[in-house]
Amino acid sequence: MFTLSVKPRFGELDALGHINHGASVVWFELARNPIFEIFDPTKEVSRKTFSLILVHSDYDYVEQLFYKYDVEIKTWIKHIGNKSFTICHEAWQNGRLCIKCNVVLVHYDFTNEKSTPIPEDKKQLLAEHLI
Amino acid sequence: MFTLSVKPRFGELDALGHINHGASVVWFELARNPIFEIFDPTKEVSRKTFSLILVHSDYDYVEQLFYKYDVEIKTWIKHIGNKSFTICHEAWQNGRLCIKCNVVLVHYDFTNEKSTPIPEDKKQLLAEHLI
Amino acid sequence: MFTLSVKPRFGELDALGHINHGASVVWFELARNPIFEIFDPTKEVSRKTFSLILVHSDYDYVEQLFYKYDVEIKTWIKHIGNKSFTICHEAWQNGRLCIKCNVVLVHYDFTNEKSTPIPEDKKQLLAEHLI
Amino acid sequence: MFTLSVKPRFGELDALGHINHGASVVWFELARNPIFEIFDPTKEVSRKTFSLILVHSDYDYVEQLFYKYDVEIKTWIKHIGNKSFTICHEAWQNGRLCIKCNVVLVHYDFTNEKSTPIPEDKKQLLAEHLI
Repeated sequence: MFTLSVKPRFGELDALGHINHGASVVWFELARNPIFEIFDPTKEVSRKTFSLILVHSDYDYVEQLFYKYDVEIKTWIKHIGNKSFTICHEAWQNGRLCIKCNVVLVHYDFTNEKSTPIPEDKKQLLAEHLI
Repeated sequence: MFTLSVKPRFGELDALGHINHGASVVWFELARNPIFEIFDPTKEVSRKTFSLILVHSDYDYVEQLFYKYDVEIKTWIKHIGNKSFTICHEAWQNGRLCIKCNVVLVHYDFTNEKSTPIPEDKKQLLAEHLI
Repeated sequence: MFTLSVKPRFGELDALGHINHGASVVWFELARNPIFEIFDPTKEVSRKTFSLILVHSDYDYVEQLFYKYDVEIKTWIKHIGNKSFTICHEAWQNGRLCIKCNVVLVHYDFTNEKSTPIPEDKKQLLAEHLI
Repeated sequence: MFTLSVKPRFGELDALGHINHGASVVWFELARNPIFEIFDPTKEVSRKTFSLILVHSDYDYVEQLFYKYDVEIKTWIKHIGNKSFTICHEAWQNGRLCIKCNVVLVHYDFTNEKSTPIPEDKKQLLAEHLI
């Protein structure tokens, strides 16, 4: 499991005084950095070096988040398929589970514009974070 | 059904040359403006005047979106419950359905911090956009 | 002069009930689309086709902006140099000038990583919007 | 001087493969958290508890920023006036100064909608970070 601590930002609050739902989308993207690095260890992040495309995400907003406390992001792998895998994220604040999220990434060849099987060595690296 | 035309923004592209998944989150939020106005006709948008809280969203990214063409957002109501309702969004570009999204909003009293039934007159206004 | 009408988005409000200063950064970026298209008419927007890099921006926040009314963005060229040019943006709401902005873009060759003179034909297209 | 380490996020890259200029706006906002807490120690962040409004910002983009390395944000106070003060931010990556920024905040009473003098005790807390 990967963990990441995020400090809420002033502008992530909305007019209701809580964190806007959109903030979690970018927090969780940031929490996927170590997973991206499995697939692009050079961190070049271009169509040639990067091989993942996001095809699904869902978010359950269980509790409101506020500016006052840091947010703890927990990230793990839930499922590894042949050409895709599922990542789970949770956002916790002050001991409360606030958001649950699933993201499906497909292994993708941007040059030929088609999905391709996840290489075995990458599967093994993902499997270390499988729960 | 509500429709909204969105021009992709330079910074919404990511290093893969396509629109980053996060862009759709803010496009769809913008597309909910007419629904927000059913519940806050004054458009004051404060904890006193506003009565909706987002509890769920899911996104299926069916096709990639690019900078080149405008994006058409279609928005309608899918389900009206006692205390919550479900909105559907679709993003279309150049005749291709690119993203499908569901959002669940709960009718919420921010002063007493609890969900409350959707008033009948609001239900009727929502029902005009029910498909 | 280019004009663009922008609808404020719920999440662009912050906890003070007004539009967060960061919103204008993306509004003005969107307002530069027609200028980008002078330099990348294919709208491919890649390191090979795009030839501008932003080196300076400044913003004067003169009046607060709110959710209630659309925002009118005015954009024009203020100065054309040999390798760079300056764009002015203004954001107006309900007859009030709310934000003034200057942005300096340098003509840049991303392959060789150096600034290059603005071609004469591009200068002429820019000059049509010079005030 | 305040320092903050920021990990670039995948979506902060744009189609040119470098960090989009807009990313720094939110990084620097985050870097102002400790200054906001001088003025709103409860961290409630509402029109009643918060007393700062941003009236100016300028950014010099000196060098490109990439995904590969963390970004170090340095923040200090440059000038303290009667009703306003100026904050400086710098973004460094891999030993290179990439962005310089000035932000002017005005001490503001959101209830009466007017600027007010910075209280003496707040001035002293700011002065500890004056360079």
